Amino acid sequence: MGYQTPKGTRDFMPEDMIVRQRVFDSLRSVFERFGFDPLDTPAFESSKLLNAKGGGGEAIKEEIYYFRDKSDRKLGLRFDLTVPTARVVAGKPELPKPFKRYQMGPVWRYEEIKSGRRYREFWQCDVDIFGVPGMEAEAEVLAVGSEGLKALGFRDFTIKLNNRKILEGMAEAAGIPKNKWLDAFRSLDKIEKFGIRKVEKEMVEAGLNKTQTEKFLKFTEISGSNSQILKEARKALKGTGLQGIEELEKILKLTKRYGLKNIRIDLSLARGLDYYTGPIFEAVVKGGEKSGSVLGGGRFDRLIELYGGRPTPATGISFGVERIAGILKRDSKTTTQVLVISVNEKVRENCLEIARKLRDQGMCTETDMLGRSLSKQMGYADSLGIPYVLVVGERELKSGKFTLKDMKSGKERKVRLKDVKKTCSK
Amino acid sequence: MGYQTPKGTRDFMPEDMIVRQRVFDSLRSVFERFGFDPLDTPAFESSKLLNAKGGGGEAIKEEIYYFRDKSDRKLGLRFDLTVPTARVVAGKPELPKPFKRYQMGPVWRYEEIKSGRRYREFWQCDVDIFGVPGMEAEAEVLAVGSEGLKALGFRDFTIKLNNRKILEGMAEAAGIPKNKWLDAFRSLDKIEKFGIRKVEKEMVEAGLNKTQTEKFLKFTEISGSNSQILKEARKALKGTGLQGIEELEKILKLTKRYGLKNIRIDLSLARGLDYYTGPIFEAVVKGGEKSGSVLGGGRFDRLIELYGGRPTPATGISFGVERIAGILKRDSKTTTQVLVISVNEKVRENCLEIARKLRDQGMCTETDMLGRSLSKQMGYADSLGIPYVLVVGERELKSGKFTLKDMKSGKERKVRLKDVKKTCSK
Repeated sequence: MGYQTPKGTRDFMPEDMIVRQRVFDSLRSVFERFGFDPLDTPAFESSKLLNAKGGGGEAIKEEIYYFRDKSDRKLGLRFDLTVPTARVVAGKPELPKPFKRYQMGPVWRYEEIKSGRRYREFWQCDVDIFGVPGMEAEAEVLAVGSEGLKALGFRDFTIKLNNRKILEGMAEAAGIPKNKWLDAFRSLDKIEKFGIRKVEKEMVEAGLNKTQTEKFLKFTEISGSNSQILKEARKALKGTGLQGIEELEKILKLTKRYGLKNIRIDLSLARGLDYYTGPIFEAVVKGGEKSGSVLGGGRFDRLIELYGGRPTPATGISFGVERIAGILKRDSKTTTQVLVISVNEKVRENCLEIARKLRDQGMCTETDMLGRSLSKQMGYADSLGIPYVLVVGERELKSGKFTLKDMKSGKERKVRLKDVKKTCSK
Repeated sequence: MGYQTPKGTRDFMPEDMIVRQRVFDSLRSVFERFGFDPLDTPAFESSKLLNAKGGGGEAIKEEIYYFRDKSDRKLGLRFDLTVPTARVVAGKPELPKPFKRYQMGPVWRYEEIKSGRRYREFWQCDVDIFGVPGMEAEAEVLAVGSEGLKALGFRDFTIKLNNRKILEGMAEAAGIPKNKWLDAFRSLDKIEKFGIRKVEKEMVEAGLNKTQTEKFLKFTEISGSNSQILKEARKALKGTGLQGIEELEKILKLTKRYGLKNIRIDLSLARGLDYYTGPIFEAVVKGGEKSGSVLGGGRFDRLIELYGGRPTPATGISFGVERIAGILKRDSKTTTQVLVISVNEKVRENCLEIARKLRDQGMCTETDMLGRSLSKQMGYADSLGIPYVLVVGERELKSGKFTLKDMKSGKERKVRLKDVKKTCSK
C-alpha cells in the first residue's frame, strides 16, 4: 500500500481544506476588525519551557513529543499556543499594552486515541489580550467570540459564563479545604459529559467530604435569568466570591454595549485548566452540542509571571478549530468556478486566452491540459464538482458569445465573456 | 532573561506576520484563480518516507529532525512539501487528473547556520500539477509564477528557463560520461554564486576531464534572444537534447497565450535537485538579486513512482516565502485602522458602540481598555502606528460629528460615523 501518515495524524484533502480555510479566513477577519494582530511562534520549543510550571498542567506534559536536535538540545513540539505566547510576552516587557494578538497553528499531543481525541496533530486558534486588569478585556474577547461564531455562519449559540472566583467562593462556603479546590473544579468540569451524580461520586472518591460536596454542587445548580443567578449567588454565598460576582455584573453591562445577547451565566461551568484566575467562558452551538464546546477561555493573570515576566493580567479565548470544521459541512471539492473547454484541437490554445480574461475578472478558472475530448472535459468538471463549463469553438470565438453550462441543472445559455461572472454568481 | 526560542528558530511578531500574511494571501488568491486547490499534510512523517530514495537527495537527510513517539515509531519533521504530497498522490491513484494542488506551511532542516540559511524552520509555498505529460503544465505553472510575483507587487522580474534534457544533451555532446552528469549539473547550479571559473575548477576536481568540462560550459554560454538561443543550441548539439529544445519551444508558444513576457532561456540554469526530469525554471526580481531566486521549479516525472505510486507526470513551482518576505518592506506594526478614544470617563462606554458601528463597516477598530487619559490614548495609537484616532466626547455624541485625526499628518477633520471609512481610505 505504500506510505501512510504517522498514527494520529491525517492529510487534509482539498474538500477538507476548503472548509478549514473558510474557518481561518472568517475568524481572522473578525480578529482584525477588533484590532488583534497576528503572531507566530516555532513549532518546537525548549523542553525546559514546555515543562515549566504554568500552562497545561501535569497530565499534558506526558503527551509532549520530545526530541533532541543534532547539538543535543532538548526540544519538544508545542502542545498549545498559550505557552509560546506567554514566553513572548514575558520576554518583551517593552511591548505596548494592551498587547492584543491572535495566533493560528497546529499543536501536538500524544494522547491515547481511545480517550476521545482522534488526532495527535490539531489546530488551535487563540485570541488574547495582555495588560488589561479590568473586565473590558473579557467583554471584548466575548464579543470576538460571538462575532466569530456569527462569521462562521452559526446563528444559534450560547456563551456560558462563570468565574473562578465564584467557584472558589462556593468551595469556601461549602467548607472544602483550599488544597482540594482544584480537584473539585476538575471534577465539576465533567458535569456536561457525565452528569452531576457522577461528578459527586468522583469528588467523594477524590477525598472530599460528602456534605461539602453536596453543598458545593448545590450552589452550581442556582438557575434563572442572569441577574437572578447573580442575585441569588450573592445571597447564598454570604460574601465569599463577591468580587467574582461583581466582575460578571460588569461584563454583562459592558457586553450590552457590544450588542451581545447570547451570554448565559452558568455556575456549573468550571473549565479544566489550572491557570484560570477570573472569569471563564465556553460556547456551544445549537445542533453541535454533541461535539462539545466550540470555544472557551478565561482570565489567567498569573501565567506571564510564571514564565519569568512582569506580572501581566491576561484574558483569552480559543476557538476549537477541529470541532468547528467538523460541524461545518464540506460543500465542495474545488474552489474552481469554471472550466473552459474546447470543442476541438484547433481552438485549444484560444482557451488559454479566454481563461485569462475570466481570471482577470477574478474568476477561478481552469482549462484542459490533457488534450481531452469534449465529453471527457465535461467528465473532469463533473468529477471535481466544478459548477460551470464554458464551451469554446470557432463559431463562439467569432461571435464573442459562448455557451455557459450550469453543471448541476444542466441548463445552458449563451453569454459574452464580460457577463460570465455575473451569470455564474446568480 | 527567561526562555528563548530554540536555536535556528524565531518568533514572528505582528510587524513580521502582517507582511507574511500579505504574501500568503496574494499567492493563494492567484493559485485559486488558476484552479489550484489547497492541501495540507502533517508536520511529521515516518522516517521511512523521509529517507526513501526520491526527494531531496542524500545531504538533506542529514538535516532531518528525527524523533520517536511514545510507541517508539520512528518519525521526522518534514524537510519539504514535495515528499508529503508525493506520498498523497502515490497513495490515491483514484484522484481525478490533473490533480492541481497548492500547499503552504513550515518545513524544518537542521542546517549549519553558517552555511547561508539562518533559520531551521522556514515556510514553503508549492504549486504542483500531477498527471499532465505535456508542456501545458509548464506554461500554467509559469503563468502562476508570473502572476504570483505581480500580485506581490514585483514589477520587474525575469523567469529563467532551461531543460534538464538540454543539459543532458550538452553533457552528452561534451563527452561527459553519464555517471558524472549529476555532478556536472550540481556544480553548474553554483554558477550564479561563484562564477564560471570556479564551477569549472569544481568540475575538474570532481574528476571530470578538462576538455569535456570546457566544452560543456561553452554550451551554457550560448546567448541571444530566446529563439536565437534555441536555434543555436539545436545546431551546436547536433541532435542531442533535441526533445528538450522542442519542449522549450512549446512552452514559449503557450506562455504567449498566457500573456507572459518575462521568460528568458538560460542554458546555464541547472537547479540543484536530483529529481528534475524536464524543464526547469527560476525567477529573480530586480533589486532582490542578492537574495537569490524568489521562485523555482521544474518537471519531476519519476517521483511518484519512487514513492510507490503509478507513473505520474508532475510539474511544480515553489515560492521562496522567506526570501520574498525579506525583500518586501514591513510597513506597519498593526492592522488596526482607527482607535476610538474618549475625552472622559463618562463617555468611555459609548466608545464601545461607536467602535461597533465602525467594525460593521469593516474597519479594524480598537477602543481603550485601560481607562487612560486622552493623551495616553493618543500615545498608544502612536506607539503602535495606528493611522487614525476618532475622538468621542459628549458634544460629539450629541451632534453625531466626531473629530477624526490623521496621526501622521496631524490633520483633524469633523466627520459623521458613516463617512469615517471613506475619509480614512483617501
